[in-house]
Amino acid sequence: MIAIAIHGGAGSLPKAAPDPGAWEGYRAALDAALTAGYALLARGASSLDAVEAAVRVLEDEPRFNAGRGAVFTADGEHELDAAVMDGATLAAGAVANIRCVRHPVALARRVMERSGHVMLAGPGAESFAREQQLEIVAPHWFDTEERRTEWLTQRQSAQPARESGTVGAVAVDSEGNVAAATSTGGTTGKRAGRIGDTPLIGSGTYAANAGCAVSATGQGEYLIRATAAREVCARMELLRESVSQAAHHVIHSRLAALGGRGGVIAVDRAGAVALEFNSECMFRGVRTAAGRREIAVWGLA
Amino acid sequence: MIAIAIHGGAGSLPKAAPDPGAWEGYRAALDAALTAGYALLARGASSLDAVEAAVRVLEDEPRFNAGRGAVFTADGEHELDAAVMDGATLAAGAVANIRCVRHPVALARRVMERSGHVMLAGPGAESFAREQQLEIVAPHWFDTEERRTEWLTQRQSAQPARESGTVGAVAVDSEGNVAAATSTGGTTGKRAGRIGDTPLIGSGTYAANAGCAVSATGQGEYLIRATAAREVCARMELLRESVSQAAHHVIHSRLAALGGRGGVIAVDRAGAVALEFNSECMFRGVRTAAGRREIAVWGLA
Repeated sequence: MIAIAIHGGAGSLPKAAPDPGAWEGYRAALDAALTAGYALLARGASSLDAVEAAVRVLEDEPRFNAGRGAVFTADGEHELDAAVMDGATLAAGAVANIRCVRHPVALARRVMERSGHVMLAGPGAESFAREQQLEIVAPHWFDTEERRTEWLTQRQSAQPARESGTVGAVAVDSEGNVAAATSTGGTTGKRAGRIGDTPLIGSGTYAANAGCAVSATGQGEYLIRATAAREVCARMELLRESVSQAAHHVIHSRLAALGGRGGVIAVDRAGAVALEFNSECMFRGVRTAAGRREIAVWGLA
Repeated sequence: MIAIAIHGGAGSLPKAAPDPGAWEGYRAALDAALTAGYALLARGASSLDAVEAAVRVLEDEPRFNAGRGAVFTADGEHELDAAVMDGATLAAGAVANIRCVRHPVALARRVMERSGHVMLAGPGAESFAREQQLEIVAPHWFDTEERRTEWLTQRQSAQPARESGTVGAVAVDSEGNVAAATSTGGTTGKRAGRIGDTPLIGSGTYAANAGCAVSATGQGEYLIRATAAREVCARMELLRESVSQAAHHVIHSRLAALGGRGGVIAVDRAGAVALEFNSECMFRGVRTAAGRREIAVWGLA
C-alpha cells in the first residue's frame, strides 16, 4: 500500500499573521512536492526515488528553509545539510556544510550510492558533487530577501533563532520498502560549521523496513540528543509499538522531557503514517493509496 | 561504584606480527590513560572529566589513530573527529574535520558547554577553538612516519583501509553519572570531508544515566547505519537488558547482520562494564572500584 508524507518544517509562528493568501502559497508548494513523490510511487518507482523527488521540489521552493530559501548563517552565508536512508538495505548518505550544490538531497544520495562513505562535509563534499556532475550554483542562488531580513533582524535584536522550514519526506513503495530524506538550511544566524540533526543518521533521518522511515524537524540540538528518528523506528522494532504510538512517545515524552520542540513524520511498510509535533505548527502533507490526502499547518488541519 | 573503560580501536591485525616489545608499548599507553581517568574518579571528579582526561592521553599517544598519530586522508592531510556526552543531562558536543586542534575531545566538550550547538565542523569549529583559547598546533604536528607509510602503501595497492586506532572512554562517577568520549583520525585514505561514526551522537558516542555510556570503534559506515552507541543504551532502557546483553546484541547481531566489524565499550550506573567486538582485536582496558583491572588486545586477554 503506497504512501508518502512530507514536511516543510516544525516551529513557531511569525508574530504578525500573514495574509490568508500567503498560506495558499505554502499549501500549493506542499501539494506539488506530494504530487511529485506520489506520482513516482504510483508508477512503481522506489520509495527512495519518491522521497528524493519530493524533497527536490521543496529545495527549489523559496518558502522553505532548504536549498533556495535557506536561512543565513552568522557570517551571512548559506550552509546546507541533507540526508537519505533506504529502509530495505539500511544504506544511508548525508552531507553537511554545503554552499554550492543546488540539491543537497541529490548529493546525499550520491554519497550513499557512490562514495564508499555515509557522510561528507564541506569542500570535500562539494568536490565530490563536482565529480558526480551534480548541478552547481553560485552561493547567492540560495538568497531570498525574506531570509536576509530575518537574519538582519536577528542580528540587531540578538533574539534566539526561529527554527522552521526544514523539509523532509518519507514513503513506502509498492514493494513495501520504506525510505526517508531530509534537507535544511539549519537555523538563522547559526555559527559557521554548525551541523544540526538533519544529516545525522538516527537523529534527523532514519529508515528501516523492520520499523519505519522517519524525517524530523525542529530544534536540532534537542533532536540529536534524543536520536529522534532512530528512536521512533527502534520503539517499533523493540517494543512492537505502532508507528503512531512510537512517534507520539518520541515527540511528546522523549523530546519534550529534554525541553525540545519539533516534530516527526513517519511511515511503515503497511502504509500507516504518523505526523506528530509539539511545536506551534508543522507544515505537512500526506497522500496514501488508501485515499488519505491532506495538507495542514496548524494543530488542527 | 566508580568504573572506567577505554578502547584504542577495534580492527584487523597487521599481517606481519610486530615484535613482542611493541605490544608492551600499547599496554603502557592504555594503562596511562586508564590511570589518568581513574585517578580523577577516585578523588570525586565527574565522569565527564574522567573520560576527557583518558581520551586526551590517548590523543597525545602516537600509537593510536586520534590526535597525534592520526591517519592520513586521501589528500595527505589529517581530519580529526571527536564527541562527548553527559549521561546525567544528555548534553552532547561533537566536532568533525578538525586540522589544527591538539585535543579534539576538549573542543567537543567546549562545543557542548559553550557554543549553543551540539556539533561544529571544519573551519567554523577551528575558529571556535581559537575563541576558546584551546591549544592550536600546526597540521604536521599530527604526522607520524608509521601513518605516512600506511597511507603511501594504501595508495599504491588500492587496498581498502585498515580501520583501527580510534580511541574512547566511558565512565561512571561516585554520583552515579555516566559519560562517554570518543576521538579519531578516521580511516586511512578517506575522502576529504568524510565524517565517520565517532562524532555522530547515537552512532559512535552516546550516554544516558537511564541506560549506559557507550563509545564505539570499527567500521564507521556500518556503525552509523546501526546507530550502534544509542542502540546499546536503548536496549537497556526499552528492553531492560543488562549492559552486557545489550552490547553483545548490538555487535554480534545488529552490526554483524549489516556485515560490519567493530566494537563497543559501555558502562552503566552500577559500574557494570561491557567490552564487545567482532573484529580480530580491540585494544581495551577497564578499571573498577570493585577491583577489576585489565588491559587486553586479543579475543582472550
